[in-house]
Amino acid sequence: MKKLVLAYSGGLDTSYCAKYLSKEEGFQVHAVSVNTGGFSAEEIQEIEQKALALGATSYTSIDAVSNFYEKVVKYLIFGNVLRNNTYPLSVSAERIVQAMEIVSHAKKIGATHIAHGSTGAGNDQVRFDMIFQIMAPEIEIITPIRDNKLSREAEIDYLQKNGVDYSWEKAKYSVNRGLWGTSVGGEETLTSNLPLPDSAYPSQLQEKEPKQVKLTFEKGELIAIDGEKDTPVATIEKLEAIASKYAIGRDIHVGDTIIGIKGRVGFEASAPLIIIKAHHLLEKHTLSKWQQYQKEQLGNFYGMLLHEGNYLDEVMRNIEAFLTDTQKNVSGDVFVSLYPFQFRLDGIDSPHDLMNASFGSYGEMNKGWTADDAKGFIKILSNSGKIATHVNQNHD
Amino acid sequence: MKKLVLAYSGGLDTSYCAKYLSKEEGFQVHAVSVNTGGFSAEEIQEIEQKALALGATSYTSIDAVSNFYEKVVKYLIFGNVLRNNTYPLSVSAERIVQAMEIVSHAKKIGATHIAHGSTGAGNDQVRFDMIFQIMAPEIEIITPIRDNKLSREAEIDYLQKNGVDYSWEKAKYSVNRGLWGTSVGGEETLTSNLPLPDSAYPSQLQEKEPKQVKLTFEKGELIAIDGEKDTPVATIEKLEAIASKYAIGRDIHVGDTIIGIKGRVGFEASAPLIIIKAHHLLEKHTLSKWQQYQKEQLGNFYGMLLHEGNYLDEVMRNIEAFLTDTQKNVSGDVFVSLYPFQFRLDGIDSPHDLMNASFGSYGEMNKGWTADDAKGFIKILSNSGKIATHVNQNHD
Amino acid sequence: MKKLVLAYSGGLDTSYCAKYLSKEEGFQVHAVSVNTGGFSAEEIQEIEQKALALGATSYTSIDAVSNFYEKVVKYLIFGNVLRNNTYPLSVSAERIVQAMEIVSHAKKIGATHIAHGSTGAGNDQVRFDMIFQIMAPEIEIITPIRDNKLSREAEIDYLQKNGVDYSWEKAKYSVNRGLWGTSVGGEETLTSNLPLPDSAYPSQLQEKEPKQVKLTFEKGELIAIDGEKDTPVATIEKLEAIASKYAIGRDIHVGDTIIGIKGRVGFEASAPLIIIKAHHLLEKHTLSKWQQYQKEQLGNFYGMLLHEGNYLDEVMRNIEAFLTDTQKNVSGDVFVSLYPFQFRLDGIDSPHDLMNASFGSYGEMNKGWTADDAKGFIKILSNSGKIATHVNQNHD
Amino acid sequence: MKKLVLAYSGGLDTSYCAKYLSKEEGFQVHAVSVNTGGFSAEEIQEIEQKALALGATSYTSIDAVSNFYEKVVKYLIFGNVLRNNTYPLSVSAERIVQAMEIVSHAKKIGATHIAHGSTGAGNDQVRFDMIFQIMAPEIEIITPIRDNKLSREAEIDYLQKNGVDYSWEKAKYSVNRGLWGTSVGGEETLTSNLPLPDSAYPSQLQEKEPKQVKLTFEKGELIAIDGEKDTPVATIEKLEAIASKYAIGRDIHVGDTIIGIKGRVGFEASAPLIIIKAHHLLEKHTLSKWQQYQKEQLGNFYGMLLHEGNYLDEVMRNIEAFLTDTQKNVSGDVFVSLYPFQFRLDGIDSPHDLMNASFGSYGEMNKGWTADDAKGFIKILSNSGKIATHVNQNHD
Repeated sequence: MKKLVLAYSGGLDTSYCAKYLSKEEGFQVHAVSVNTGGFSAEEIQEIEQKALALGATSYTSIDAVSNFYEKVVKYLIFGNVLRNNTYPLSVSAERIVQAMEIVSHAKKIGATHIAHGSTGAGNDQVRFDMIFQIMAPEIEIITPIRDNKLSREAEIDYLQKNGVDYSWEKAKYSVNRGLWGTSVGGEETLTSNLPLPDSAYPSQLQEKEPKQVKLTFEKGELIAIDGEKDTPVATIEKLEAIASKYAIGRDIHVGDTIIGIKGRVGFEASAPLIIIKAHHLLEKHTLSKWQQYQKEQLGNFYGMLLHEGNYLDEVMRNIEAFLTDTQKNVSGDVFVSLYPFQFRLDGIDSPHDLMNASFGSYGEMNKGWTADDAKGFIKILSNSGKIATHVNQNHD
Repeated sequence: MKKLVLAYSGGLDTSYCAKYLSKEEGFQVHAVSVNTGGFSAEEIQEIEQKALALGATSYTSIDAVSNFYEKVVKYLIFGNVLRNNTYPLSVSAERIVQAMEIVSHAKKIGATHIAHGSTGAGNDQVRFDMIFQIMAPEIEIITPIRDNKLSREAEIDYLQKNGVDYSWEKAKYSVNRGLWGTSVGGEETLTSNLPLPDSAYPSQLQEKEPKQVKLTFEKGELIAIDGEKDTPVATIEKLEAIASKYAIGRDIHVGDTIIGIKGRVGFEASAPLIIIKAHHLLEKHTLSKWQQYQKEQLGNFYGMLLHEGNYLDEVMRNIEAFLTDTQKNVSGDVFVSLYPFQFRLDGIDSPHDLMNASFGSYGEMNKGWTADDAKGFIKILSNSGKIATHVNQNHD
Repeated sequence: MKKLVLAYSGGLDTSYCAKYLSKEEGFQVHAVSVNTGGFSAEEIQEIEQKALALGATSYTSIDAVSNFYEKVVKYLIFGNVLRNNTYPLSVSAERIVQAMEIVSHAKKIGATHIAHGSTGAGNDQVRFDMIFQIMAPEIEIITPIRDNKLSREAEIDYLQKNGVDYSWEKAKYSVNRGLWGTSVGGEETLTSNLPLPDSAYPSQLQEKEPKQVKLTFEKGELIAIDGEKDTPVATIEKLEAIASKYAIGRDIHVGDTIIGIKGRVGFEASAPLIIIKAHHLLEKHTLSKWQQYQKEQLGNFYGMLLHEGNYLDEVMRNIEAFLTDTQKNVSGDVFVSLYPFQFRLDGIDSPHDLMNASFGSYGEMNKGWTADDAKGFIKILSNSGKIATHVNQNHD
Repeated sequence: MKKLVLAYSGGLDTSYCAKYLSKEEGFQVHAVSVNTGGFSAEEIQEIEQKALALGATSYTSIDAVSNFYEKVVKYLIFGNVLRNNTYPLSVSAERIVQAMEIVSHAKKIGATHIAHGSTGAGNDQVRFDMIFQIMAPEIEIITPIRDNKLSREAEIDYLQKNGVDYSWEKAKYSVNRGLWGTSVGGEETLTSNLPLPDSAYPSQLQEKEPKQVKLTFEKGELIAIDGEKDTPVATIEKLEAIASKYAIGRDIHVGDTIIGIKGRVGFEASAPLIIIKAHHLLEKHTLSKWQQYQKEQLGNFYGMLLHEGNYLDEVMRNIEAFLTDTQKNVSGDVFVSLYPFQFRLDGIDSPHDLMNASFGSYGEMNKGWTADDAKGFIKILSNSGKIATHVNQNHD
């Protein structure tokens, strides 16, 4: 019997796959879900029961939160990556790690096939298939939903005929939760002009009293909140618990999909946005101008390739080496004030702060250089412009 | 008698210069102020009276708001330029245009000297001197404050001894107002960890009721607000009048000065921030992925050189040609909701919107291509990664 | 009867298509060849006779040399574009223009189908199909060679059975000639370690006596050779006639194909290489440092997208606007010495030369600035490094 | 007595400094020369004798060839760095390492002053001063030639009056030799239009018989020539000995100096040019498209900052981390043929060669994908262009 690993989420599409592939196609279906921060223990238990009930031979829950952080999230922070200056790449980033975990699992149990529930119109199919094909070209990929262009109704119909009777009523908004943010899609995101209503976002405003938090970074990683040290993953989760009560970090991302169409998706990501902006502020104080310049370019590029599923291209490892090296001095505290729907960066404190009053202050008297030094500086700096004007004014 | 043009603002430093240069150094002082959006008619009248009272032979007020927009602000919008992802370059941008107006005026009246009140510790000296030296190397630059490292007390003392008796008490916060934003400096901005208090910002919260406004862009320029057409300058001012009542657009910029030290400055810029973000959203809907990618890189670079006073480098003209060409289809309406201290981008409406449902929607069934097309696409896209894995796995 | 436009070159593959599509598939075949500099009048006549003999209803020869120059070659010169620092993109560039001419012709005569002879393993299929699909999505594309994976033998066999009896013996090297260079493929280019033998290149060494030529550029375009003015196309052809006798401009390009595999191809391109290097030298004398810096980045990017068939992306028009704007002062003479197998750039003469002795010479005494100016310049330039060392040395 | 370290080369300028500073200014002069590959043992002995005869208290010869390679040259190879696509940065690169060695020596012996012989019109003053000021702000810099704008005649006169009677006749060409190339300046390089005569180059053509050499790289470093393993430095020197007999690697660099004027300098650098081009070819076979793309951008930038003396900016370390990481698979042999005045890259052999025939060959039948895969790929690739045409054609 052909062994197949199914990327299983408990939703309608992958439930259809579980039943269909085990019953009609004769696969031994090994359901797998990869937790990148979105599932609670209860949800995982529910998913397991469903999978087995639908005909899966086995179910495995892979906890990949820490891998997700180490392999991707860490670099998104180092690079201050916000796709199109807006989106922390929540879902894009998760899919990559999920795909790698799934293919590793498939190899471990000797599966000859991998199945997933993606349609033919989105980014996820590309991210999944690329990782699968590159890491295990010998494994065949099966995608019933994409291949058969099945409608929800057809899927429900099939499941009911086969005695599966869960309630599959469509949620008004499709939500994907993870460590690095929650995406929200709905009828408004299919238009260009409508925002999502407040109610579409999972986290509602619960806290109105402003509060300052202190985020501590060490070599670019978030290691403490208000002085309480913990792993970066735990600290991110703590910050999310605090900040999501302020309904911070909501926005809509409009972007270019890998398949060439434009897409629009809402998201809420309070911890990711606060962390990236706080980290960026710390860098403004601790990095040189050119470090910031090159980081911006490489961070954007890293985000683009990650978004497009190109995580395995060796250039990504090279950029990670660059980003890691830039973080040597990115250590210190960042003070952030939380308000309903927004946050403000109050300031930083770092032993590596290059805004160092002992040397000289912006616009103030200083001991580091003289007026003549400044004038000489500007004179030489003007040379090329002066020559160009002199040479070209007579020839225009 | 040597003719000297003095960049005159009415403040202590340039008042000292007016007196000192006319009385002690024997210059015929022609005071000039260049309005880039910060001066009201009354203020200009006051400045004129002061200048003449201090010994200036003539006073000229140059209205450069429209030039400021055409030569700089327009391209900052086209390029979505926010220095370090934060600062709309309010002051940096003004100084460039002011310097060019001053040097043109100096040439027109045949001045042999130009004086300004900058110190030796800031960016403005570089911006002024560079423009002056490049456009008129034959004119000598005089900077009494920089050269003599005068303290406020010494200046006031000198003026009083010479019968000038204005009240020069130091404002708690130094404020620079212009079309493209207002900068705010004070004791907090000399630290790394303290935010400016709310009261330091000139515009205070006056409006709490959320409101949606419709911004209309044509080829990248803001031409109407809520359907009311006007010049871009007038429309920016209208938006500022509306949005500043919400106290929108406050932040602190931490940046690298031209002279190599870090500086920190507060600002409020409600219209600039709303316009740049709205314009950017419209571009996400109307430009290709690669247009956005290259615009981001060139926009950042343009902002860096502008900030550093390098406006006259020919590469700036080349980038302006690039940016202008990208705006062909950046036309349409952007819907923005204003709230106290923040705004949200609701959506856009444009005939050039590339998120066009008639072709195919993200994640939805579509007619533009088949599942097999998508699979072929991904397969070929995986080729290079597949080969690299195949080749290198045996050699690691 | 369905009208079909066939991109016809006179070779075996497209001859097969002509016969097969007219006879077996019932198309009214309109053969078209697009001359981008590779065909002589006699060759075109021969191609015409062949096309009609094979069953084509009509044959059209489109002279696109001038379009090729205006739409692509000009910008490759402006941008000093050498793919991977080596290859002037000879074939890549031609294909784009050929595809646009073909689709325009197809629309003009109301064709419903376009056929071409590309296989499924190369770049040309992508360049052709993308242009066709974007400019005329309503026209169907037919590619018998790609679809049926036909061998040469099968094609010859079919043609002979149908009374077509040309001699189709395979040349040892497949050669593609055009205005912007000639590509050469053979058994050596399928390896990684073997160079092409000298005999594989169409132009053989005929001239051993060194000679200096003077190339005159105006706003970046080559307008004269040795003072003799002509159109850029004619001047390129003249230079090629002179320089190819020295067997200049041979090399092998190793590059990434659009479909993800690596490819290797020989080429000879004496005029293109001389022109690009001469133009580049003129720019070193006439452009600012930052113009050169940004041109290099954008030129590389332009070459990459052109190579990959992405010519119609709007970003290409934007970059062309940028490049054109950079050429304002790129005018003057470049002196080039030709030797067997190589050339040397001797120097330039330009009214826009920024290496202007009247201002100051490198390393020589000068009047433009003083020792103190230089020292002040360097002092301020060292500020950021000094601060970083000061701040971080105590914390490492 | 104040301890002063003098960067001493044995030439007129630094000989003047040795005498003048010890005799007139009362310094205890410690002469130092730093060998970055340009001095033979005899030359060093001669320099030592001169230094002591001129009044130096001590003389130290620092052998920095290996440091030069490890700190700079290695990365210039990894980055394929040719300034303006031409110049291997021979002198620029040496100066940096020399400055660092000198300042380290000065700190070691407790010197309070450092002197060098640069004028105020070149790049070297910037490179030296910046390194000195950043690494040892407490040490004062003394530059008699720059400060006093002394002519050669005045210097010779002073030395003769003080009993120093070497022959100081000016060589027709000033030559600077080092591991990474030799620069040549003369009257022609002060013009824009004249090339250097063949006789100006130190290495003359001695070998006319073509020869193939095999260069072996391991992780980007040159470790063997014709199979003979040695250190990279020794291998570079061996290759130089072989290739300079062919008079390979001559050219003229036209560049922007740090002080804003244009400069022109001849050079010969046979080993550096062959190594960079060979290394680059190996990378074309072993790196992904995006690795090459980013390497090109970062390599150019690295070369710019190095050229401008910005070696100590932390971004340089970050880029070195990036470049090192890219070299993991850049191992293998490169075959290079040497001819009089030129060389050709014949091909490569590498276990990491991604042009791997077992997967598929460019333009040939293949097993990796089908015609339908290719068609699907192109179809999806055309999506964005198709949409743009569709949307915008009705609105132009």
